[in-house]
Parts: sequence; structure tokens; C-alpha cells
Amino acid sequence: MVLAVLKEARDARVALTPDGAKKLASTGLEIWVESGAGAQAFFADDTYSGLAQVVDRARIFREADVLLSIDPLAEAEWPNLKAGATMVAQFAPFTDADLAGRIRASGLQALSLDMIPRTTLAQSMDVLSSMASIAGYRAVLEAARHLSRYFPMMITAAGSVRPSKVLILGAGVAGLQAVATARRLGAAVEAFDTRRAAKEEVESLGAKFVEVEGARDDTSAGGYAVEQSEEYLQRQRAEVQARAVKADVIITTAQVRGRRAPILVPASTVAQMKPGSVIVDLAASTGGNCELTQDGQIINHGGVTIIGDSDLASGMPQDASVMYSNNVVNFVKLWAVKGELQLDLNNEIIRGAYFTAADKA
Amino acid sequence: MVLAVLKEARDARVALTPDGAKKLASTGLEIWVESGAGAQAFFADDTYSGLAQVVDRARIFREADVLLSIDPLAEAEWPNLKAGATMVAQFAPFTDADLAGRIRASGLQALSLDMIPRTTLAQSMDVLSSMASIAGYRAVLEAARHLSRYFPMMITAAGSVRPSKVLILGAGVAGLQAVATARRLGAAVEAFDTRRAAKEEVESLGAKFVEVEGARDDTSAGGYAVEQSEEYLQRQRAEVQARAVKADVIITTAQVRGRRAPILVPASTVAQMKPGSVIVDLAASTGGNCELTQDGQIINHGGVTIIGDSDLASGMPQDASVMYSNNVVNFVKLWAVKGELQLDLNNEIIRGAYFTAADKA
Repeated sequence: MVLAVLKEARDARVALTPDGAKKLASTGLEIWVESGAGAQAFFADDTYSGLAQVVDRARIFREADVLLSIDPLAEAEWPNLKAGATMVAQFAPFTDADLAGRIRASGLQALSLDMIPRTTLAQSMDVLSSMASIAGYRAVLEAARHLSRYFPMMITAAGSVRPSKVLILGAGVAGLQAVATARRLGAAVEAFDTRRAAKEEVESLGAKFVEVEGARDDTSAGGYAVEQSEEYLQRQRAEVQARAVKADVIITTAQVRGRRAPILVPASTVAQMKPGSVIVDLAASTGGNCELTQDGQIINHGGVTIIGDSDLASGMPQDASVMYSNNVVNFVKLWAVKGELQLDLNNEIIRGAYFTAADKA
Repeated sequence: MVLAVLKEARDARVALTPDGAKKLASTGLEIWVESGAGAQAFFADDTYSGLAQVVDRARIFREADVLLSIDPLAEAEWPNLKAGATMVAQFAPFTDADLAGRIRASGLQALSLDMIPRTTLAQSMDVLSSMASIAGYRAVLEAARHLSRYFPMMITAAGSVRPSKVLILGAGVAGLQAVATARRLGAAVEAFDTRRAAKEEVESLGAKFVEVEGARDDTSAGGYAVEQSEEYLQRQRAEVQARAVKADVIITTAQVRGRRAPILVPASTVAQMKPGSVIVDLAASTGGNCELTQDGQIINHGGVTIIGDSDLASGMPQDASVMYSNNVVNFVKLWAVKGELQLDLNNEIIRGAYFTAADKA
């Protein structure tokens, strides 16, 4: 049975590194890698030598049993695949109700890495977490680069400057990594979250936790924020505004799965921010936490730089691929046994990911 | 007597901030600021209100006694100035032997901030140091942003990554700030310098000092590196190469005043570096410490990103202006007394800067 790694169409990452290929040897699967798949992540074809076979795309389509990628394979290419093939990618089926049906109708099946339950057991396979961590790290680097000030306090012969003030909205994986990185760089950091559980984590990183009373706190939401009442959001926006006028940087990370991201920084707040300050909006692809964010763009609004980028992990493709690949290895080992696919629907993780399973029709 | 701050032609910084204007009130000078001078550094005209008079450029040329800027005023504009006016800027007269004569011939005089002796006494006026510090900080941010890996060690559910290895060549002000910033971000840092005095400073920042035997160590060189023998440079390049093959990032800061920067990273070393690694060359404007550097450009050479930028301070114009302005205030207070210029040539600092003084002809 052949598992083949595809070259991404629009992403610099690769879903399986040479080290990942090595770790999958024990599954008994034959590992193929599309020529050039790892090039942009600095894993040239020859780095897979002895660990995987480098083949062309046409052969993968004709012969591979399992096709691994980060972005799903384009729908137009499905008819070219071997009958019954399994695609493994991030399908986000919750945004497309007909997707599972269309895949089944093509005679294919699919496992979606973003449907793995966000439990402790599945943590080692959680691509959303590992990529969010990179996004949080890089959000701080982007902010620091665009900010016209030092992050750390500086005490020099030429005088002193105070540390920059960084406000982080949402203390999930991305937000916590942003807190940690901004603290490393010496900024004074405040963080918000609707989940009270975040308070201790934020404080253990040396940042201040800002509480807004009256949040719906749902620990069953699998790491996602739950939707809040409009009344709560208004109170939260007022708290944000009070801090935003003093902030040098705001990093927003609040996403609600399958819905538009909540607006936490309305245009009226941006208007009160200091010229030269910077907003990095990691929720850009789902509408943005800042009202003025434009996805995939860096804009200047009255002296405030607003960076809309939900894809920061792809900007660090080498380590992002290493982490993604580690997640993939842990996931594949669940259902690839002695060279065969064993999709045990009693396994909660497999059941979560296997969104094209017949009994989910 | 009027001191006027010019709007820079090519630089986002401004030589005097509103706070700087306030601090100069005690000198008795009348402070003017050219309209728009601070805009790119986020000091709008109205922020000078009550502290300085905002005027147009033509009036400054006609009436100002002292003209303050970062880059020197273009030679074509000298004839427009009031007779006997004093220009204060960074003239780098050591690169242009006739400059002082031409200025005197125009009936003007000039004080060069980059000619202030680099002594303890003059530290608070040392624009080269304050700007070098910003360049070192920003060099690390640029490197981290272009690197395809995390700087810090990461231990996560998706596996661990080792910290990036950063090699810093030259441990002057820029190099030490780069060491400090890379350490803040969690990298493993090694630094070279020909001055043995740098060892303790490097180690106190948590980095490893790499020694190359047989350097000419001249503490009278005023903070600049002294030129080394070709034999020494060969030994140094061999040491660099041995480390470069393992490094993720190299930041080079070695400049020799008035001469081409020494080549520390030849093309043959770049060829042995890991794909995905990054070189930031702060000596780009004087020829570069890397043989392949192109000034003002970011190039990719066999998977190695080479960033040639000697002007990183201008990318953080707000704090860069604050620091520059603080230096300027301390310098102006030396010779502006009760509203008059008193260029006392017995004062070592004034004598150093006053390169158009009649007795230097």
C-alpha cells in the first residue's frame, strides 16, 4: 500500500519531512514523495533518499492508495485518482456541508486533520495547535518589525525608552505563544480571554490577564472560543478600547469555528490608537477581529498599521513542516497497521477525522 | 539665534523630537521645525506646538543660524543658506578630504555628529552608538523573520525543535545588541570580535565568545575595529567557516572607519551553509562583510538569504528619532549658551565635531 506526499499548490510547507518518512517505515506503508514537494521548506528531493521514493505527480494519481497534503487536492483532480483512494488533508468540512457527499460520490474517502478532536490524547496529532503556535510566534515578529519602537525597555547613554505595550486578544495556543514571544522580547504584555482557564497560563508567562465579567465559558468547545452574547462583546470592546489607546501593538487571535470571527477592535477603536501602533489580525481569513482588517494585506489606517494574515505558519515552512509532519506521523500510525488501512470507527480520533465515513452520510 | 530642524530627504527619522525641542528651551535658542519634518517618525507638526515653531523650508534657508539634520544638506542647497550659517549633521568628512574646504568656501561652517570622539564623556552624544544599537536589534528581527525555523527551542506535543544557532561577527554596539536580542528570543549565540575586551560583555549576555589568536587589539580606535593582517583575516575566515556550516543565522557588523569592510564570509563559506539559513550584513554600505552582499538588497544564493542593509535604524524611525534627538540635545547644550554659539576649541568634543574650523584648514 502506497502513501504519497503531494507538492502543495499554494503553500511552502510539506506534509511529511524526510524524518517523518523515516518514522513511518514501521507502518509497513510504502512512502512516495512528489518531486519538489519539500523544496520550499528546504527539504530537497535528495534529502528523502533511502526514506521515500521520489516520483512524479501523474504516477501518484494513478497508483497511490493514500494521498497526503496540507491543503486538500483540488476537486477537479479527484477523477484522476485511483478508485477508492484516501485523501488526508485539512478539509474544513464544517464550512462546506456537501463536501463529504461529493467525495463519496467520487468513489474516494477522506480523513481531515482539522477534525481530530482537540483532546489530550490527540494533542500530538493536532495540526491546528502546532500551526497556531507558529502563527503566534510570527505575529510578534511581524509586529516588532512594523513597530516604530523598541519592544524591550532600553536604558542607554542616549536615554531610556519604556517597553512597548502589547495587548493580546485571545489566549488560545496562538495567543499564548504570542504572549510568550512578546515577553521574551521584553514587552509589557496584557492578554484577554473569555475562558477563565487562560488566566493562570497568561500569568505564568509574566503577562497580565484582563478579565471581562460575564463570559460564557464552555470548556467543551475543544479549544475554540464559544460565541458570546452581544452584551458581553460590547463590554469586551469597551475594555479593549480602554487599553488600545495605550497599546503599541494589538495581536488578535479570536476565532469561532465555522463562524465569522468576532469584531473586538472596531474602527472607532483604531481611530483612537497612537500613530505608529500596529495590529496583527490572525483571524483575518474568517473576517478579522479588527473591523478594518483586509485579509492577506498590510494597510495603514491613520498611522496604524493593520496586518491581516491567517497564514503565518507558511512563512516559516521548515519548522512548520517539521511540526506538521510529526502530527501526521502520529495520526497515520493510528490507522496504518502492517501496511494496511484500518479505519476503526470505535476510535474517537479516527471517527472525528473520518468525515466521509459511510455511517456519517 | 534660530536653530532649525530640516525634513530629511531620504530618511524617515527626524533629528529633533518635540521632547528634544522642549529640552533645548534652556539654551535660549529659538527652535524652528520644517513642516512635515517629523511626520514619518510619527511626530506630526502639531506635536511640536508650544515647543518649536513650524515653518517652511524657504524661510529656514533664509533665516536660520543653525540647520540641524541627520543626512547633510545637499551641496546644491548651500548657496541658499544665510551667510555664516552652521550645519549640524553626519558629514562623514573622513570619506571626502575636500569637504571641509568646500563648506568654508561657501561661507558656512559645520559640526559633524559622527566626528564626536567616542569617549565616555561623549557617550550621551554618540549617534553612531545609539543608531548601531537599533541596527543590531533590528538585524535579529529581520533574521528571525526570514529564517524558516523558530529561534527558541520548542518542546511541544508535536515534538521538539532545537534552538537556532546564531553567529555574530563583531561585538561592538550593534553586535552586542544583536547578541542580547538573539538571546532574548532564545537562540544559541556565538560571537567573534578582534577586541579581547568584548569577551566579558559577550559572555555576560549568555553567549559564547569565539577567540581567534593574534589579533591587533587597539583600544585607541574609538570603538571601531582596527585593520587586521591578511594572515589574521585568513585564520578568522577559517574559524567563521567552521561555525557557519552549522549556523542558522550569521549577523555581520565589522566595519573599519574610512575603509572597505573586511570580508569575513567569502562565497565559498556561503556555499557550505545550510539551505534556509540567513545572513544579515550590517556592513553592506561599506562593501559588506559577506562577499555576496548587495547593498540595499535581499538576495537568495543557493538557498541562503543574504540581507544587505546598513540602514536598519531608519526602519524604526520613532525610537530612532528619540535616541538621535537625545544625542543632539546633549551635543547642542555644549555649545549653545544663552542663545549664542560658543564653539570652544579647547573642548575635545566640540573640536572633534567642528571639522570646518579655520585652524583645521
